[in-house]
Amino acid sequence: MVGREIERLIQLLSRLPGLGSRSARRAALHLVEKRDTLLLPLAEALAAAAEKVRTCSVCGNFDSVDPCTICGDPRRESTLLCVVEDVAALWALERSGCFRGRYHVLGGLLSALDGIGPDDLGLPRLAARIGEGAIAEVILATPATVEGQTTAHVVAEHLTPLGVKVSALAHGVPVGGALDYLDDGTISAAVKARRAL
Amino acid sequence: MVGREIERLIQLLSRLPGLGSRSARRAALHLVEKRDTLLLPLAEALAAAAEKVRTCSVCGNFDSVDPCTICGDPRRESTLLCVVEDVAALWALERSGCFRGRYHVLGGLLSALDGIGPDDLGLPRLAARIGEGAIAEVILATPATVEGQTTAHVVAEHLTPLGVKVSALAHGVPVGGALDYLDDGTISAAVKARRAL
Repeated sequence: MVGREIERLIQLLSRLPGLGSRSARRAALHLVEKRDTLLLPLAEALAAAAEKVRTCSVCGNFDSVDPCTICGDPRRESTLLCVVEDVAALWALERSGCFRGRYHVLGGLLSALDGIGPDDLGLPRLAARIGEGAIAEVILATPATVEGQTTAHVVAEHLTPLGVKVSALAHGVPVGGALDYLDDGTISAAVKARRAL
Repeated sequence: MVGREIERLIQLLSRLPGLGSRSARRAALHLVEKRDTLLLPLAEALAAAAEKVRTCSVCGNFDSVDPCTICGDPRRESTLLCVVEDVAALWALERSGCFRGRYHVLGGLLSALDGIGPDDLGLPRLAARIGEGAIAEVILATPATVEGQTTAHVVAEHLTPLGVKVSALAHGVPVGGALDYLDDGTISAAVKARRAL
């Protein structure tokens, strides 16, 4: 019905997260309509990203330089290290602006089902970084899911023999959250971890 | 925070319909993670679309050939012509599979505010096509909005002197639609246009 080039474009766009087949069609049409202002620039940006962007060999972040901007920034705390599941989590922490240390990107979570073990998460590399001695505290920021917390436990077990302080993000009521809309697990976690006022 | 290439990619992706800044970031990450299977193929598909896809000089559809596949298909009814607002509407009609005639894409709707007049909608070109004599009926399939219906009226006024039959899509209850969820305008349209059983 439409040309082969447009079909191919729709098919690839529909593989992006957040775009179904209908929105991929709309996006493809929008791109073809905005050939010079969007389609060509996006093609160039993708080619540039493919050429330049690489995984940081120190922390696992994506950047055009290796080590990445964060690892190479001398103003960042080198005594604090935050362990995250993936680069999306790293970016979320960076956006919050609350953390000025460095990172270790696991690149996934432990999963016996998918055959993902400690080596796949770069734990030997993490242990080697800690062995260098500059890191005083490791903050585990894996997701608050069963897999995330299991992974946090295993990472903590790997790190405690190294004599480094290990901590994890607090669980509780999200800021702005009404109790009525929260799940039971979050409410019990918030009650258990209640703080004195 | 992230490399210049990724920032640029996120910025361009966020201009696609259906992708906000958050989902553009997720899409960019997904692309960088799937460099060989998605990022590079998408870059190539965009470049190919930019090079090949053009507007059909007869109907205004997008295709890699001119006249487009629909205009060039001898099996399609050449006596029926459907007037649509844009290529998205043309594709929607094609997907429904209910129309086997040819098209005229207006490329917009009449709008005094935006300075869009009859010439901008290719009405002289449409009149010329009808003047060639093969077309027996023109179906107006502009949207059922104020602008869409105003445009349909003006197009009809342009075409009736040419002696061609002009029709418009029926208004009424969408198939699968419950009355309780319909707006008043649709319900009155359906009552006015009720059919004998």
